[in-house]
Amino acid sequence: MSEPEISWSGWGDPAQAAPLPEKITTLLRDLLGVKPREAAPVALADLAPRPSRLSAAALRALGEVAVVRTDAESRVRHTRGKSTPDLLALRSGDVSAAPDAVVLPDGHDAVVKVLELATEHGFAVVPFGGGTSVVGGLAPDDSGFAGFVALDLRRLDRLVAVDPVSRTATLEPGLRGPRVEELLAEHGFTLGHFPQSFEWASVGGFAAARSSGQSSAGYGRFDENVVGLTVATPTGTLTLGRAQKSAAGPDLRQLVLGSEGAFGVITSVTVRIRPVPEVKKYEGWRFADFATGSRALRRIIQDGPVPTVLRLSDETETLVNLAQSGAIGEEGGSGCLAIVGFEGEPRDVADRRARVREILIEEGGTDLGEGPGDGWAHGRFAAPYLRDSLLDVGAFVETLETTTFWSNIPALYQAVLGALPGHLVMCHISHVYPSAASLYFTIVTPDIDWDTAKPAVNAAILAAGGSISHHHGVGTDHRAAYAEEIGPLGVEILRAVKARVDPAGVLNPGVLIP
Amino acid sequence: MSEPEISWSGWGDPAQAAPLPEKITTLLRDLLGVKPREAAPVALADLAPRPSRLSAAALRALGEVAVVRTDAESRVRHTRGKSTPDLLALRSGDVSAAPDAVVLPDGHDAVVKVLELATEHGFAVVPFGGGTSVVGGLAPDDSGFAGFVALDLRRLDRLVAVDPVSRTATLEPGLRGPRVEELLAEHGFTLGHFPQSFEWASVGGFAAARSSGQSSAGYGRFDENVVGLTVATPTGTLTLGRAQKSAAGPDLRQLVLGSEGAFGVITSVTVRIRPVPEVKKYEGWRFADFATGSRALRRIIQDGPVPTVLRLSDETETLVNLAQSGAIGEEGGSGCLAIVGFEGEPRDVADRRARVREILIEEGGTDLGEGPGDGWAHGRFAAPYLRDSLLDVGAFVETLETTTFWSNIPALYQAVLGALPGHLVMCHISHVYPSAASLYFTIVTPDIDWDTAKPAVNAAILAAGGSISHHHGVGTDHRAAYAEEIGPLGVEILRAVKARVDPAGVLNPGVLIP
Repeated sequence: MSEPEISWSGWGDPAQAAPLPEKITTLLRDLLGVKPREAAPVALADLAPRPSRLSAAALRALGEVAVVRTDAESRVRHTRGKSTPDLLALRSGDVSAAPDAVVLPDGHDAVVKVLELATEHGFAVVPFGGGTSVVGGLAPDDSGFAGFVALDLRRLDRLVAVDPVSRTATLEPGLRGPRVEELLAEHGFTLGHFPQSFEWASVGGFAAARSSGQSSAGYGRFDENVVGLTVATPTGTLTLGRAQKSAAGPDLRQLVLGSEGAFGVITSVTVRIRPVPEVKKYEGWRFADFATGSRALRRIIQDGPVPTVLRLSDETETLVNLAQSGAIGEEGGSGCLAIVGFEGEPRDVADRRARVREILIEEGGTDLGEGPGDGWAHGRFAAPYLRDSLLDVGAFVETLETTTFWSNIPALYQAVLGALPGHLVMCHISHVYPSAASLYFTIVTPDIDWDTAKPAVNAAILAAGGSISHHHGVGTDHRAAYAEEIGPLGVEILRAVKARVDPAGVLNPGVLIP
Repeated sequence: MSEPEISWSGWGDPAQAAPLPEKITTLLRDLLGVKPREAAPVALADLAPRPSRLSAAALRALGEVAVVRTDAESRVRHTRGKSTPDLLALRSGDVSAAPDAVVLPDGHDAVVKVLELATEHGFAVVPFGGGTSVVGGLAPDDSGFAGFVALDLRRLDRLVAVDPVSRTATLEPGLRGPRVEELLAEHGFTLGHFPQSFEWASVGGFAAARSSGQSSAGYGRFDENVVGLTVATPTGTLTLGRAQKSAAGPDLRQLVLGSEGAFGVITSVTVRIRPVPEVKKYEGWRFADFATGSRALRRIIQDGPVPTVLRLSDETETLVNLAQSGAIGEEGGSGCLAIVGFEGEPRDVADRRARVREILIEEGGTDLGEGPGDGWAHGRFAAPYLRDSLLDVGAFVETLETTTFWSNIPALYQAVLGALPGHLVMCHISHVYPSAASLYFTIVTPDIDWDTAKPAVNAAILAAGGSISHHHGVGTDHRAAYAEEIGPLGVEILRAVKARVDPAGVLNPGVLIP
């Protein structure tokens, strides 16, 4: 508990917030027409959530199995997630989505008991890890319930086991990214999972929301690295994963991964681990345009050898990044920037790097050296801080992402841009697979009706054949689109599973399941 | 339909059956005490299954939506699968498990109609691809039903689409392994899926039973290569897989893969494909013992680069293989044989081969050259024919397989051997993953009470922490053990899904779902 708390209405450690230089603020005002917001943000101390709706009996019973907090600060700190609408609501003082209590169990058995109490006393439960959902995953539909609690899993923070022979580790869900790396490093291993939320998000969230890290080309997505799971549900415990791969029936692990707390609370995860890399090399490469760069990325991921990091910004994002770093013009300014990174033991890195270099050159890439690569690596977790600063000066900034097959990437890209006309929209290919890739968009605009624009983008994504999320998840924000994506029978299957494991529907009501 | 039919009571093309040389038969008799069976095998023409239990109305309705066959030969040819108990039952003239009719739909819509008729008329449906199940997947529990039909999918045999950019192909379920390769080769691609059943098994079966091929180290398991599925269920159609990877909820594809026809009939599968390899090289390597060889395989799969084929026989299997090929003694006779294969474009193969060679030598391997590799490749689909020949002379021969994490492989290996005392049991590591491997056992014995021995092995596998199947599946034979493996809540989840998609329970009753 000695770690800093994440900002209640923004990203990360408030001590690390970096206000925008006056030059950029001026640029935003003159170029984009960004105007300061009229109302000043409220202070945490001034906020008073409504009185807790939990009965005295429920609170007393909870207090017997876990630490329970009902003070205003604790409740506000567990209100909503980190999407831009979440942050704007909080900054405006709207804490109507505050939990009625924050409950901190200390282990699997305590979680089971909390779920039993939820069913018994009729309150809802929102599993809470890092609190970094950007899709409304922490704002349940609590109608019909006697309030809801945030089930904060931070006390489940042990490295339970390391198997160096099988290269697996069993982790508790409350561990955050940096702590996982610290604990595994003591054994010479890394998880290699570095999403942008790395510093704050938790293992349970990585699993429940199918997180993807920036080094997924080399280390794989989080879900791909999960070999086992323990899950507490209101009707019992699931222990899954006797082997990494098995033909014994449907893979029930894949029903829990991505279930976003609607089927159960993940109380341990066994994951694949790897030796701490001896060498890390990140390079910048320039391509004439997005199509040319995309083709290069595709060739590399399909034919190998595969780098650890592989990403490509479109022309707009490349230009904005250059402007931001003051490097505009230096390299000609035009084109698209790719980051190509290699981690591993020296010889393996050298071999892969040499071969990938050949391919990049064959595909029209220009080597920009390690400068842009190191710059990217240095700032890889900083974007959410930048969003805070932009929100501070009155801009609207949000991200969204999708994925489709390579042959459909150009059409999906155009479809999303077409759904956001008149705004500054940047994009990068954030993750690549042999058959598919993901597109990650950032919108910066002085003004937008997001409640209208976001569903329009969702509809455009679905119409263009994309998935509603590559790595942000479903939450409440994507629920309707998700129902379209999996179809009526897919929805019915999820409802059938939900009804079986959580008949009272106390787990994350309104999240995920349409 | 011009392709040869698989043997009704053995493996493969009867024209390719190879009786054992007199020398081997003598050896079996003298060394193992194998005695010829007393009863001579019956002939297909002499078999008469019981009269069809389907009502005239049901048969008439089926005839309007599909081709229907009720002749004795068709029904016998769709009776049971290819486990040794299956073959012995058929050879003894037991066709009590014959379907009441064989139904051959010509597409997804016809499958949907057959399922509607099943619910309406109360008969059960067994999806039938290549008919190669070795776990009782084709012998349903039809109590309570007005008979059952074998839903033979051979007419769904199209390559529906090839996407050369995304490297995916959409295949219908009735396509058999060789036909898939033939169709894809016209486009320059391969599926790279070569299980021992390759020549007879079908795409639908590969998906429904989570098949693994002998080249899985390089090409992956079949389930890993599935990106999309269309599934006909009694309550509607599921269309899954908008992208290769997505964070949009649980992965429902993984609920269909391994469902063995109990949730629905897979009517199309979209899979990852790769360029036809220009080069194929297979090598033999000898290790002093199974533990040393296992360590070498583990190091290669964990640290790479990864060969296309990677397998290791234990001492007994190595000795028997040498005896079979007449090569015993030539190489000293002792130790364990590994097969290491590389497929791809020449430079990539050369690079990987050179590096893997270094590691194999570092780990104590002795290069046996391409002879044993080519020998393995030549005979890779022949083992089931050999089983027929051994059954012909009176031996009992069966295989079983399991998987666990690397650190647990030695204990699991000993546990299985310990559960089959007094018999000749051979083993090889058939598939490897970064965290785990599979063990594939072959038992050859003059006499065994398999009905007692098999459950004892299953219990030993579970007690030792293994999965009940790495690639054979669950069927009816592993159902009880599978229930133990996934636990009561896992079972309840499967039942809930089953009840939703197939409320009348007409699909493969008694298979998979406990």
